[in-house]
Amino acid sequence: MKLGIVGYGNLGKGIECAIRQNDDMELAAVFTRRDPETVSILTEGVPVYPAEKAVEMKDQIDVLILCGGSATDLPEQTKEYAKYFNVVDSFDTHARIPEHFANVDAAAKENGNIALISAGWDPGMFSLNRLYGNAILPEGKDYTFWGKGVSQGHSDAIRRVEGVADGKQYTVPVESALEAVRSGSNPDLSTREKHTRECFVVAEEGADKDKITETIKNMPNYFSDYDTTVNFITEEELQKNHSGIPHGGFVIRSGKTGWEKENTHIVEYRLKLDSNPEFTASVIVAYARAIFAMKQDGMTGCKTVFDVAPAYLSPLSGEELRATLL
Amino acid sequence: MKLGIVGYGNLGKGIECAIRQNDDMELAAVFTRRDPETVSILTEGVPVYPAEKAVEMKDQIDVLILCGGSATDLPEQTKEYAKYFNVVDSFDTHARIPEHFANVDAAAKENGNIALISAGWDPGMFSLNRLYGNAILPEGKDYTFWGKGVSQGHSDAIRRVEGVADGKQYTVPVESALEAVRSGSNPDLSTREKHTRECFVVAEEGADKDKITETIKNMPNYFSDYDTTVNFITEEELQKNHSGIPHGGFVIRSGKTGWEKENTHIVEYRLKLDSNPEFTASVIVAYARAIFAMKQDGMTGCKTVFDVAPAYLSPLSGEELRATLL
Repeated sequence: MKLGIVGYGNLGKGIECAIRQNDDMELAAVFTRRDPETVSILTEGVPVYPAEKAVEMKDQIDVLILCGGSATDLPEQTKEYAKYFNVVDSFDTHARIPEHFANVDAAAKENGNIALISAGWDPGMFSLNRLYGNAILPEGKDYTFWGKGVSQGHSDAIRRVEGVADGKQYTVPVESALEAVRSGSNPDLSTREKHTRECFVVAEEGADKDKITETIKNMPNYFSDYDTTVNFITEEELQKNHSGIPHGGFVIRSGKTGWEKENTHIVEYRLKLDSNPEFTASVIVAYARAIFAMKQDGMTGCKTVFDVAPAYLSPLSGEELRATLL
Repeated sequence: MKLGIVGYGNLGKGIECAIRQNDDMELAAVFTRRDPETVSILTEGVPVYPAEKAVEMKDQIDVLILCGGSATDLPEQTKEYAKYFNVVDSFDTHARIPEHFANVDAAAKENGNIALISAGWDPGMFSLNRLYGNAILPEGKDYTFWGKGVSQGHSDAIRRVEGVADGKQYTVPVESALEAVRSGSNPDLSTREKHTRECFVVAEEGADKDKITETIKNMPNYFSDYDTTVNFITEEELQKNHSGIPHGGFVIRSGKTGWEKENTHIVEYRLKLDSNPEFTASVIVAYARAIFAMKQDGMTGCKTVFDVAPAYLSPLSGEELRATLL
């Protein structure tokens, strides 16, 4: 199958790498809003075109992967491209998913295409585990922990503080809270009890570090509800020790069974990711394979990970899957 | 939806309890090969019938749950009942799944029914996690660990040893092996390195305990490939401390991404179950809901967990799922 990529940032590059790891896939083209001359990709012989050119290539691309941001790009792009292509995006603004789904569904159905929105790990693999957990253990409680990992939004917030030259923020799950959940005691956990926030900050020369620390710790929405630590380091240290984009987390379902609900079960799904965008890309690419096969089975319209039978994700046949992985 | 149960052992009782936890389900009848007069179930007002009577009730049961054993019951029962009912079983003889699938598929298709085989946690939820892990991280390695939990087969093997009055065996994953896998080092692990076996044995009066220990530790297939410990306890201690049927385990996918495969990702799925049969029953009941809905969508024939889009498992609508769990 032939894939196209719209947007060549961290995620787009991750898609390119993931395609290389799947023998049944080929990268057909990368589309960018930048000057294509300035965009150098890794795959030899694959063209980079201006975004406007994508529609001309609609017959040469089986699935188009949209790698824009959820704030402004995807709400416009996915519904537009779904008129011409089978598409996958990683739309992650949870509150706006219903609206996005409706828009994309209408565009895809009207044109006989299939679309999958919100692929990745949260939304995505974490959502799947919430669903499986709730369906299997209807009487129970859900817990989602994030980290340890870099939060782009919180890192951006740090960098906007006066006197800050650069910075990175890690979201860290609290180990004792995780253990309490794993014990089956179904604790009620406040925001502060679930996660801490670790900041690594490069201050501008002569900046007031105490003031920076106070400003970060008291920042509403971002930090004030958490126990936050602020560490000042050099730009060199930041580059050397904090240039990766690791992330991960835990989805835990704790539930009861038995006539008197006497038995407790803990279902835990954990991700430990060296590269958030590359793992997200790997999920997206598997779902691109899935929707292409679903389209061949006659399905159209907008889907989410909830609508995809797992077998569609694999290049193996049903027989092979039953013989090797069941 | 109305469910029937064939076979009222630990699993059948677990199904009965699980049905009670799902508002959209009702137990219609229990069928047994024993004298129905001797079988006392928990749900008031639900009849217990001889197994032969099941077919007469085919229009009053939406899905029939088959709770027999995989060795001899299910290979005969599932394909037979699939002629008259939508059915779910927990067939767990991995090597014979392809043959069982083919038999059940033919019977179900011919009669316009739908069947789901091998529901539970392994096969079942563990299989799903192997599939998702392989599809997302095609270059990597799978690890499955079982326990800590009671192995019925190994407990039976202990009890057949001369001089043993009673006994229970726990399969225990080796913590250092788990940690090595979680580190991303992709270790090659021998059988002995992955699990240990803990036996709790009640000896008959005057029995030679050293001989029992040696016989157990050297038993081929069951114990000789493992580090096994044998603890002698009283029947009272066995009843008090070892009467539960806990189990669980881990499925871990360790994979690489990136242009030069420079990034490592660990996906870990863990179950910690107080009651193996009740959790298995909870999975089965969710899949009963799923296949009943799939049948209404026009699907027939034999399915496995790989073929079921996750949304079918939930009583919630697509809109509700997207708004609450995605």
